[in-house]
Amino acid sequence: MRHLLVIGGDAAGMSAASQARRLRGPDELAITVLERGGTTSYAACGIPYWVAGLVESRARLVARRAEEFRTRQAIDVHLGTEAVAIDTAARSVRARDLATGAETEHAYDDLVVATGTMPVLPPVPGLDADGVLPVRTLDDGQAVLDALSDRAPRRAVVVGGGYIGIEMAEALRLRGLDVALVDLAPQPMTTLEPELGDRVAAALRADGVDLRLGTPLTGVEAGADGRVRAVSTPDGAIDADLVVLGTGVRPGSDLAAAAGVPVGPSGGIVTDPRMRTPVDGVWAAGDCAETVHRVTGGPVSFALGTVANKQGRVAGLNLGGIPAEFPGVLGTAITKYHDLEIARTGLSLREAATAGLDAIATTAESRTRANYYPDHAPIAVLLITERGTGRLLGGQIVGGPGAGKRIDTIAVALWHGMTASAMVDLDLAYAPPFSPVWDPVQTAARIVPEPEG
Amino acid sequence: MRHLLVIGGDAAGMSAASQARRLRGPDELAITVLERGGTTSYAACGIPYWVAGLVESRARLVARRAEEFRTRQAIDVHLGTEAVAIDTAARSVRARDLATGAETEHAYDDLVVATGTMPVLPPVPGLDADGVLPVRTLDDGQAVLDALSDRAPRRAVVVGGGYIGIEMAEALRLRGLDVALVDLAPQPMTTLEPELGDRVAAALRADGVDLRLGTPLTGVEAGADGRVRAVSTPDGAIDADLVVLGTGVRPGSDLAAAAGVPVGPSGGIVTDPRMRTPVDGVWAAGDCAETVHRVTGGPVSFALGTVANKQGRVAGLNLGGIPAEFPGVLGTAITKYHDLEIARTGLSLREAATAGLDAIATTAESRTRANYYPDHAPIAVLLITERGTGRLLGGQIVGGPGAGKRIDTIAVALWHGMTASAMVDLDLAYAPPFSPVWDPVQTAARIVPEPEG
Repeated sequence: MRHLLVIGGDAAGMSAASQARRLRGPDELAITVLERGGTTSYAACGIPYWVAGLVESRARLVARRAEEFRTRQAIDVHLGTEAVAIDTAARSVRARDLATGAETEHAYDDLVVATGTMPVLPPVPGLDADGVLPVRTLDDGQAVLDALSDRAPRRAVVVGGGYIGIEMAEALRLRGLDVALVDLAPQPMTTLEPELGDRVAAALRADGVDLRLGTPLTGVEAGADGRVRAVSTPDGAIDADLVVLGTGVRPGSDLAAAAGVPVGPSGGIVTDPRMRTPVDGVWAAGDCAETVHRVTGGPVSFALGTVANKQGRVAGLNLGGIPAEFPGVLGTAITKYHDLEIARTGLSLREAATAGLDAIATTAESRTRANYYPDHAPIAVLLITERGTGRLLGGQIVGGPGAGKRIDTIAVALWHGMTASAMVDLDLAYAPPFSPVWDPVQTAARIVPEPEG
Repeated sequence: MRHLLVIGGDAAGMSAASQARRLRGPDELAITVLERGGTTSYAACGIPYWVAGLVESRARLVARRAEEFRTRQAIDVHLGTEAVAIDTAARSVRARDLATGAETEHAYDDLVVATGTMPVLPPVPGLDADGVLPVRTLDDGQAVLDALSDRAPRRAVVVGGGYIGIEMAEALRLRGLDVALVDLAPQPMTTLEPELGDRVAAALRADGVDLRLGTPLTGVEAGADGRVRAVSTPDGAIDADLVVLGTGVRPGSDLAAAAGVPVGPSGGIVTDPRMRTPVDGVWAAGDCAETVHRVTGGPVSFALGTVANKQGRVAGLNLGGIPAEFPGVLGTAITKYHDLEIARTGLSLREAATAGLDAIATTAESRTRANYYPDHAPIAVLLITERGTGRLLGGQIVGGPGAGKRIDTIAVALWHGMTASAMVDLDLAYAPPFSPVWDPVQTAARIVPEPEG
């Protein structure tokens, strides 16, 4: 009987465990999962919508409960159990029951590290004030909801203008709060070129968000009761009775690193395409792992549920005896602010420059539907291409309903290394309720400068 | 001064003329377009939505008027002028002014035949009754609108359950008419597998459409006043005071064929990838032309505006001195019936069998958004793959809002000859308002049986 141990019971860890179980029955493989939190397989991406009141309950965000893994798949899930040390020589993990403090040792033949992310907090005083809340876990989401119902806050400050920041700004606006958003960067969504980032900024401002760009957070001020009452910036204080931290995450690779498992330049655990680390018997998958960017070939880590599920599946296939490889990522991602859809894939101009690629950005304005069809909305498609060859390096979309998922067309084209001119030939679907006769993606591809010569 | 003559002033013809003009000024190339109808560059695909009342005027369906081509691009457009004969030896086209009957001769150095489609009418008596209307041209659309306003019909019969048939059924239901739809086939949308066609049938029935499948039209009955009053079928008459013919089209290749220009097995004019016919100086583009199916390599003709625009552009690039090739089609198409979106690309099982391919269909049921996010709707994705290799051959989608344009993901994968298992690796966009964490396309790819061995 071999023993598979998994640290982390969310997307990557449970995908690995489930996939391995489908290939190896309980008579040949024991599977144990150690999960620090109180829930398996929950949709962290759904937290802003739960806070907004669009999702009826916390339970709806749990794709599959620990009990189901136990009874249906004979996967021994330990909740509230934090792995505190890995001994890769002895092939054993020490874990602590967070309720009792009791420690246990778990031997393994194979270990999957799926420890997710760690929050990156701004280095300022006062973050421990009551009412300053991150939004990374279900418990975090519950704390925001509790604050909304118990204290009826009126003024919220969201720190960070990335995905979670704008999703939380939307949620709090939907809850009727006054919202200020503070970001050090000169635009929200810094993964977009400024031209598209400006459209996101305009949408936030049009919705009444007090947008403080190029503004570092310098501190959080609390009242005598310990409750937050403002945040400090060089331009003065902003009143707040709720502060939401959306300042980003980094790979949660510390536990593995402490055990001598190599961590790469992205901060993620080094893996090969089969999701093995360089340490015998140790695998890594999901947000804590480093993988390859398909465009640059360089090492990257993305905190994306899609990637976590795929990497967990690949690890599980290999652990179950079916050779499988994870072929790398493009960093495809999507979000929205009310009706404005925002998506990107591949490299930005800056990322291309960092990779030594001479890139240009070309933007086409178009409509989501035929311009005579009701409810057509603007869509801007920006393509990043290599100068001289026209090779696609990335794409970004900001537009109305129906705009965002068009990023998938660009992502599949990018996956295959297409040039912009070849994309013009693609046979995409057209009917007036769905698109102009030239899809906006192709309208963008058509105006990319032709390769010379 | 060379002379480019174009027969047909819609998508393919005007794309060719415009593209050639952008590359060759009026001092080196004269361009003349002969158009039988009264309008250039109109959106035939928009007619059902105009009839439905969703498009405010006929003018909105005209992308660019003849006058604009004349003044802005020095393209000499002759409206109401039908080409009646091509003399390929003399390089001349005889045309007739449909208002005066006067005939003119037009010499050319290069001729682009872009004569569109011809309707295929059921071989039954009574089609000349008053109130029996096709919907191919703007004039046809106007006639339906005139019938609606002048006669206030209450019962319509739509003949044909393809794209135009179901779009016209939707339009007439939106206008408040009782609608029966008659089709010889056992399902609407015969380009779909029965399993998905049945969903379209269910949506039509749920909307109150009297769906008569497997039912040949045997005649149209008129009253003493010459007006239609019913259609006949083997199962009895169906009362109707309006009959809309959506029985399909074939390539409008007769004029070219009469001049000795070869017509292929699809009924379309034979072309090479540059859109040249085998006859020197004669080009063809759009619905009248035959092209190559990218999956089978065999000859096909599709009446699709996307293809017409692309082929016209390729012809125009070549005529302007820039070598360009049209790389073939997948037959990607999309429509909807109210909220039910319907799309397909590539081969059906039957088309695969005809091409000698051993294919299987795999269908996955999923949701358009995360299942905890509001307004998620069912989506069925059906993939056609080659047995044994898993190579993608086609795809079909039927589902709620947000379902249909996912066909583009499949179309780009198909363009590159991906296998289903490789599609599982694609980096597609996920956020709860847009998709489950595994996009429905990948959920389908995951359950395609693995290649043997």
